[in-house]
Amino acid sequence: MGDSVFVLVLNAGSSSLKFNLFDMVKEVSIAEGMAERIGLAEANLACVIGGEKRKESLALPTHREALEAILERLHANVLHDTPVHAVGHRVVHGGPKYGDSVLVTDEVLHDIEAFAIYAPLHNPANALGIRVARETFPDVPHVAVFDTAFHHNIPDHARTYGIPYELSQKYGIRRYGFHGTSHAFVAARTAILLCRPLRSLKVITCHIGNGTSICAVGQGKSMDTSMGMTPLQGVIMGTRCGTIDPSVVEMLMEHEHLDYAAITDLLNKKSGLLGISGVSSDFREIELAADSGNDRARLARDLLTYNVRQFIGSYATVLDGVDAITFTAGIGTHSTYVRAKVCSKLGFLGVKLDPEANEHGTGERIISTPDSRVVVTVVPTNEELMIARETVR
Amino acid sequence: MGDSVFVLVLNAGSSSLKFNLFDMVKEVSIAEGMAERIGLAEANLACVIGGEKRKESLALPTHREALEAILERLHANVLHDTPVHAVGHRVVHGGPKYGDSVLVTDEVLHDIEAFAIYAPLHNPANALGIRVARETFPDVPHVAVFDTAFHHNIPDHARTYGIPYELSQKYGIRRYGFHGTSHAFVAARTAILLCRPLRSLKVITCHIGNGTSICAVGQGKSMDTSMGMTPLQGVIMGTRCGTIDPSVVEMLMEHEHLDYAAITDLLNKKSGLLGISGVSSDFREIELAADSGNDRARLARDLLTYNVRQFIGSYATVLDGVDAITFTAGIGTHSTYVRAKVCSKLGFLGVKLDPEANEHGTGERIISTPDSRVVVTVVPTNEELMIARETVR
Repeated sequence: MGDSVFVLVLNAGSSSLKFNLFDMVKEVSIAEGMAERIGLAEANLACVIGGEKRKESLALPTHREALEAILERLHANVLHDTPVHAVGHRVVHGGPKYGDSVLVTDEVLHDIEAFAIYAPLHNPANALGIRVARETFPDVPHVAVFDTAFHHNIPDHARTYGIPYELSQKYGIRRYGFHGTSHAFVAARTAILLCRPLRSLKVITCHIGNGTSICAVGQGKSMDTSMGMTPLQGVIMGTRCGTIDPSVVEMLMEHEHLDYAAITDLLNKKSGLLGISGVSSDFREIELAADSGNDRARLARDLLTYNVRQFIGSYATVLDGVDAITFTAGIGTHSTYVRAKVCSKLGFLGVKLDPEANEHGTGERIISTPDSRVVVTVVPTNEELMIARETVR
Repeated sequence: MGDSVFVLVLNAGSSSLKFNLFDMVKEVSIAEGMAERIGLAEANLACVIGGEKRKESLALPTHREALEAILERLHANVLHDTPVHAVGHRVVHGGPKYGDSVLVTDEVLHDIEAFAIYAPLHNPANALGIRVARETFPDVPHVAVFDTAFHHNIPDHARTYGIPYELSQKYGIRRYGFHGTSHAFVAARTAILLCRPLRSLKVITCHIGNGTSICAVGQGKSMDTSMGMTPLQGVIMGTRCGTIDPSVVEMLMEHEHLDYAAITDLLNKKSGLLGISGVSSDFREIELAADSGNDRARLARDLLTYNVRQFIGSYATVLDGVDAITFTAGIGTHSTYVRAKVCSKLGFLGVKLDPEANEHGTGERIISTPDSRVVVTVVPTNEELMIARETVR
């Protein structure tokens, strides 16, 4: 396997570690999987290696044991004696500093930990993953790829909050935006589907999954995006509230006697589609419940599609029109209902969905009619591949 | 003056009392003014009575003395011996209960005080104004006209926040919306300007003043509006932050050690255009500073127009198109710059502003070109007259 360049992509959560091993000569994934419940009872490791799925229960007291277990399986099955050439790390928040991917140094790792102020649920776990991986692979390059990087240069009027200027400066409070690798990837694929250069296109990309964000892509750049300083703002999500009146935060803290940790937990983990529906944060379960007549599940579903549609209208005014609307991520790729409902009141923009293509196609495709003034596409995202590409670059 | 029906409209703030006396037979204002700095040093009373302006400094220890001073001047100059027939009160928040104006009873007054939970800066003052006025005019009907009433029936998916359903139910947390009398008034006037029934029109009304809200009016009803549970959400305002990432609220409370009162004060009174520009909350001063090259004043101005334009796009998706966009309130009526800038990237909607009509006209008028697919209008609002009309009804 001397002609292969192996890049391991890692995405560390607080009790999970996702991995994807790419051979970057052919740009193919040759193994992927996830360790879950790290540090908890009943930890497990699920892998797909050489097309074969396997899931095992094993003790994973820390991320280190999880990474070692993953490596053992990779070496036994695909890597054999070949080393990993580089490791790419998904990092949620690059703060005000990182507008591009970066080779990890001690300073970079320290910054990622410091930016936990903007992403308290994500950055500490990402940093832990990097720390463990650097100890395990001390001799290969580690690259941090930031979710925020694609949005690094959105205009000031799109990223400034209406709070006192001095406080924004003091803490670096502004819109950062997330899912950057995904928005960049699906916008580029959409340009290819349209056979037009991305620079000449106005694209609105809708990453709708457990986390959801919408992005206005003009001249190939992010001009605005729905998530904010943290991944909490914008569209309602699986367990995150999305945009709410700021007074609601104050009122809940005051009347429910919640401190910082408790309100952060409430709005990030107990809200959103789960909090509204009372059913699940999993949209498939919400769709099933809604179809069986559950009113709160219906309301949750309506909120999601209503929110997304409003951002599309909003971003049409940012770009002065729109050439293409792209759906991606779990819900965006799989829910025909969501796509149909989002597009249902966009006739004034010239959007005409092709119901047949929306319901029956699979994979990357155009789902609008040939005479639709706005082309609507579905593009499965591939954030891991983008991270691997960034790592090679 | 036996053929007159005098209605006094009162709008009580925490240290101010605005009044407007209407003769409702002719629907004309015959006196108006405001007592300011009540309970503070250097209180004053400004009136326009019979076309004559006057401003006096006098001691106004409480709202009672302010109302008495106002009445004294009204009786001496215009009312003489004729009594006031009814009093209409502007009340900011009607809570989940009031979807229409209501005759004030002890129960109503109690409710208005209880709804201070949603409008801590406004409802207590409104209630105080009603209390004092009822003691001063014990024998006439008092009517409470709510800023929230016009939005009372917006659809569930437009008013539900993505927080746990049980908490929304427990506290009545939802979008209420404000400036209802203004949105209703200017939408109706716009229909008249277009010579079309309001029921058949899709109108987006932009109330842009010290407080700003945008409203999607479909079939004559409010379908969605930019303010939320409180008047803090939505577009950036004179001193209010508008929509921000909910995490910013938590972060500021945690890192600046702010309690409920302090964060409410910060986001309501020290933020917005004032907080960004560092110049003033008065948009005329911000425009002057921006024109002289002050970067922060320019940023504040850009944020306002950018926010308003995004809501227009968003509400076009709520209504599936738009027939008319209406500008009202202080900034909306007077700033040619704001109107031009807001309309500048709406070409995709078919908006064509007539620069001549935008810059040189006055009063109620159409400012789009004859071939503009969307009619753009300016309609000075008249909330006091609407309150007087509601009072008579």
